[in-house]
Amino acid sequence: MNVIVDLCVVPMGVGVSVGRYVAECQKVLQEAGLEHQLHAYGTNIEGDWDDVFAAIKRCHERVHALGAPRITTSIKVGTRTDREQSMQDKIDSVIEKEI
Amino acid sequence: MNVIVDLCVVPMGVGVSVGRYVAECQKVLQEAGLEHQLHAYGTNIEGDWDDVFAAIKRCHERVHALGAPRITTSIKVGTRTDREQSMQDKIDSVIEKEI
Amino acid sequence: MNVIVDLCVVPMGVGVSVGRYVAECQKVLQEAGLEHQLHAYGTNIEGDWDDVFAAIKRCHERVHALGAPRITTSIKVGTRTDREQSMQDKIDSVIEKEI
Amino acid sequence: MNVIVDLCVVPMGVGVSVGRYVAECQKVLQEAGLEHQLHAYGTNIEGDWDDVFAAIKRCHERVHALGAPRITTSIKVGTRTDREQSMQDKIDSVIEKEI
Repeated sequence: MNVIVDLCVVPMGVGVSVGRYVAECQKVLQEAGLEHQLHAYGTNIEGDWDDVFAAIKRCHERVHALGAPRITTSIKVGTRTDREQSMQDKIDSVIEKEI
Repeated sequence: MNVIVDLCVVPMGVGVSVGRYVAECQKVLQEAGLEHQLHAYGTNIEGDWDDVFAAIKRCHERVHALGAPRITTSIKVGTRTDREQSMQDKIDSVIEKEI
Repeated sequence: MNVIVDLCVVPMGVGVSVGRYVAECQKVLQEAGLEHQLHAYGTNIEGDWDDVFAAIKRCHERVHALGAPRITTSIKVGTRTDREQSMQDKIDSVIEKEI
Repeated sequence: MNVIVDLCVVPMGVGVSVGRYVAECQKVLQEAGLEHQLHAYGTNIEGDWDDVFAAIKRCHERVHALGAPRITTSIKVGTRTDREQSMQDKIDSVIEKEI
């Protein structure tokens, strides 16, 4: 089952600056070979359900290993059976309606 | 790794009334033996990371099988390494500060 | 416009224990006279759009005033024009399908 | 109070294709003069709290007016008192740690 996911990992108990924890998650996604795109409030990811969620679990493991005692993460996950749709398709479907 | 999760499954393309799809997810959680608590905008779940996310995947499979061609789901997932905390502990930690 | 909202306020830069900040938000909702129900990963709120969002803004102001330098909040907001629906109605519509 | 917001509006009861409703929200943000950036699972917005939330309310009004009887929207909202931070600053703070 293919998914498009939006991931936002928030480490707690490590102060206000969390960029290096988010960067660690980007590395995890990179290592997993998952297509992903960082934005200002999370990261879009595309791939097989199991691969994507295995990577998200590794994000938690690695962010804890970096010293964060608590993590609260928001995930949006979209699946559809009517047709295939990529992250770019979703963006294009909005942009073409704006014209 | 123990998790506390908040799950909100939104089937799309099936009209405005989605109660029976949410009820199906409750059944999935029940069958998985996971502690869970329905609220007005989602369901709190507690358990092992792998068990909880396996159940969430089954929710998507079963909601698609019931006829929903598209699903968008919101998940919050909390983990901590400093101490154990149950769903009820989280609620209690707020209520005791309100007194 | 009536809304049902799920609110989860996460103060950052104040350590791992955030119960007293969440308790402050409960007080804000109480003072605003808004119907609300705490759960393990947020708070359900019901009311007029403007009243609810004014209260959410006050939550941010008060949590900053308590010393949190950074806040990341998740909000789900539901509106419908086809019929009125309370928080309890949403729960009931699922439970009756489980029977 | 300046905010960075992530907005994801999901119209229900209008079938699986929701691009034109999301495009309407882009128009609302454009008309409001708010800086915003569409991604594959939502839109990042930056601005004053009141301006941003007034625009989000207009999104609900306009999406209902287009025919959607029900809407469920996810919002993330970030505020900080320690320093100013733009959407691009947030992205940069991650990218510089990846190098």
